Amino acid sequence: MINYGDDTPIAAFATNPGTSALTLIRCSGKDAINLASRIFSPPNKLEQAGGHTVVHGWITGTKNNEKIDEVLVSVFRAPKSYTGEDSLDISCHGGYGAGQAVLDTLKSAGFRDALPGEFTFRAFMNGKLDLTRSESVMELVSAKTDAGRRNAISRLCGVLETEINSIKKMLVEALSATEIFLDYSEDEIGLDPDEDSGKLPAQETVQSALDRLQKLASSWQRERLYQEGILAVIAGRTNAGKSSLFNLLVNEERSIVTDIPGTTRDWIEAGISIEGIPVRLADTAGMRESADPVEKIGVMRTRDLLDTADIIIYLIDGTIGITSEDRAIIDELSSQNKTLLILWNKSDIAPKPCGNTAQQAIGVSAKTGEGIAELTQALAAAAIAQVSATAENTDNSLTAALGSNRQKICVDAACTALEEALVLAKKNEPLDIIAPLLRNAINSLGEITGEVSTADILEEMFSRFCVGK
Amino acid sequence: MINYGDDTPIAAFATNPGTSALTLIRCSGKDAINLASRIFSPPNKLEQAGGHTVVHGWITGTKNNEKIDEVLVSVFRAPKSYTGEDSLDISCHGGYGAGQAVLDTLKSAGFRDALPGEFTFRAFMNGKLDLTRSESVMELVSAKTDAGRRNAISRLCGVLETEINSIKKMLVEALSATEIFLDYSEDEIGLDPDEDSGKLPAQETVQSALDRLQKLASSWQRERLYQEGILAVIAGRTNAGKSSLFNLLVNEERSIVTDIPGTTRDWIEAGISIEGIPVRLADTAGMRESADPVEKIGVMRTRDLLDTADIIIYLIDGTIGITSEDRAIIDELSSQNKTLLILWNKSDIAPKPCGNTAQQAIGVSAKTGEGIAELTQALAAAAIAQVSATAENTDNSLTAALGSNRQKICVDAACTALEEALVLAKKNEPLDIIAPLLRNAINSLGEITGEVSTADILEEMFSRFCVGK
Repeated sequence: MINYGDDTPIAAFATNPGTSALTLIRCSGKDAINLASRIFSPPNKLEQAGGHTVVHGWITGTKNNEKIDEVLVSVFRAPKSYTGEDSLDISCHGGYGAGQAVLDTLKSAGFRDALPGEFTFRAFMNGKLDLTRSESVMELVSAKTDAGRRNAISRLCGVLETEINSIKKMLVEALSATEIFLDYSEDEIGLDPDEDSGKLPAQETVQSALDRLQKLASSWQRERLYQEGILAVIAGRTNAGKSSLFNLLVNEERSIVTDIPGTTRDWIEAGISIEGIPVRLADTAGMRESADPVEKIGVMRTRDLLDTADIIIYLIDGTIGITSEDRAIIDELSSQNKTLLILWNKSDIAPKPCGNTAQQAIGVSAKTGEGIAELTQALAAAAIAQVSATAENTDNSLTAALGSNRQKICVDAACTALEEALVLAKKNEPLDIIAPLLRNAINSLGEITGEVSTADILEEMFSRFCVGK
Repeated sequence: MINYGDDTPIAAFATNPGTSALTLIRCSGKDAINLASRIFSPPNKLEQAGGHTVVHGWITGTKNNEKIDEVLVSVFRAPKSYTGEDSLDISCHGGYGAGQAVLDTLKSAGFRDALPGEFTFRAFMNGKLDLTRSESVMELVSAKTDAGRRNAISRLCGVLETEINSIKKMLVEALSATEIFLDYSEDEIGLDPDEDSGKLPAQETVQSALDRLQKLASSWQRERLYQEGILAVIAGRTNAGKSSLFNLLVNEERSIVTDIPGTTRDWIEAGISIEGIPVRLADTAGMRESADPVEKIGVMRTRDLLDTADIIIYLIDGTIGITSEDRAIIDELSSQNKTLLILWNKSDIAPKPCGNTAQQAIGVSAKTGEGIAELTQALAAAAIAQVSATAENTDNSLTAALGSNRQKICVDAACTALEEALVLAKKNEPLDIIAPLLRNAINSLGEITGEVSTADILEEMFSRFCVGK
């Protein structure tokens, strides 16, 4: 069975295969360079290449020396590489054929497929990156907008790591001060047991650490929105003009970041960026009640999608007006706690809206583009409101913020432990039931960066003793 | 206005942006390395880097020195690069954000977006690649199967270039022998004008060149099929089970090369590889006559698609049997000159087929997988028949074959000129009306590899004269 944690030579596509100029294949592991030399022409050139050099040549078949592809190979010698191992970045011709053929050849030469995240796992194991920076690598890769990228970069630079380590240091100091009370008799450290017993030393430090951790915890809801995006769903009856509006919005918004075809034909989705906030725009099947079982499934799926939506854009066909069906759906959607934008579509040929609901509607024409500017403004306002509602403003990307749910769980655990410790301290409970809570909090923070915590608690504690003791 | 042919610094994505580990950006042009150093930290490290080395650092913003992305930069110094200019391959983090931010920063530093093919154009202009090899680069990138890749690689290795140059050399020799008759009086070269006038010297050479060119011309139809793929369309009435069969075939065939979502929702398409032959498999909208105008458009598009199909897979719903509508469509499709595979679907629950048409049908069940092996065999046979019908067998990838329609046009022009020359020669027409035809053929071949032909005709001609003449 294949496991993370060995150093066997691995290889994987580092870029998406497709019709592009180049495809990059990444290789790493013990003996990776020598192994690759066997399928490289001229072989000596690669084998003898120094670290951080680029070698030009051909990948050749293992059996018949057939030329597979002309490539450039960047050579990295351990430990000066991303993983800390001998590594190669092979730049092949793009397209489906060349890269796949090279990867197949690498595998027949002894490389195996890399597991997900295995290069970064090795980088972490070899001390190249802590866990927060390792996670930021994946976050960066899946960043949907430039604001999302910036948040990830700040973590890759180590802003979060530094903040966690700084908070942890405070707690380690508080803990070691506490442990001294527990481990040594009063005489030795010259404290009056009657006066101070039961009072937590460095209580302010613990409170201040808790404050900083709570600030970090609150950052996650906002960061998560940047990572996952806001879901905006276009709904309305069949033929209300949903697809035309969808296409218009997707084309209008120049900073399209991704097209995600729906997994079924029931809806399609495109990622757009509104004020730097990633928005997943979904176009749904018509909502008319149907006898056709296939269509019924489509309508059911649309309802599921509407349930998870953050913003709903509901289209009324202005030429027909509000039907009783429209009204029923709008009433239902209004009762939910989400932003509802009602559009009076085909405004170029439709009569003016009348009635309460219709008058709230934004008149748009997917055909002439009328009202689209107003719609995108309303969308932007709704998206910003979603983000602002979640956390205090942290425009400065150098402010530490959490980047993953895993980190949030650890921070929450640390906060819970510290809160409990402070409650106990205020009640003057014995230090030996408070100290383990501090240790738990420290361990949780150590988990965030991936350190083994016990060793450095000990080190910190004893380093404050005098020499020779 | 931006033109091909200058040496200003250009930059472009060399890989598809998307959720991948890395994104590669290629830069090239006069002063490209110094320009990039201004947005690189540490700047000196990049500026002073030798050719074929890899430099690790950060791309930084032009204004505020903000860290944009952590990158590896491969440095190439002119003329030792793909383009022959100073070049950089910047390996950024993957995803949409990082690569785009780096490209934007490069542009604010003075790079401009590269035009399509501009790197290879520069490689050609700087004598790094002839035109056949330049074209093979693009061909390789869009190769849909491993066989297609192999064909492209043979041209990248210069197999076609060598063949064209070899044929051209024969014609240049024939032409120069002919020109001698025209330019010099008989006395000087010691030939008897009465006996030989009007006879084309080296007529066999011309014939042999023509034979080789005709063989090349005939290779194109087959190569084109490998490049463009065979179109197989799944058709049938609504609910005949087309989508299920489509999904089954796409998943069954392990060597899927590409998913191409249809531009409309009327059909979807997936690229599959059958015996190394790329097949574009299309699933269409149902073919029932419809009153719904939207559905009507879908049906019309299906008919257009069927018109261009090479293979049609027609599904009959076995539980319903052949309807008069099925029969009408099958009759219509049979009358066309394409492979028609009729399937009796839902064979697990349907009665046995009866009647002539139905008995030809392959019984399949998209649900149980029954008959799918038989279907893929029939598909493979049809695909192979398509390819075999087009040209003689050239399994050996080292046989020269044409790789583009442009090349085919030039080869055709050369063939036409040579055929005409040989006809005239057989009629003993004067050499001064035959010689221009040879020159036209040589020019056409020179166009294929991108050489300027006149210079080397002259060189060849005079190099065979004695010194001092």
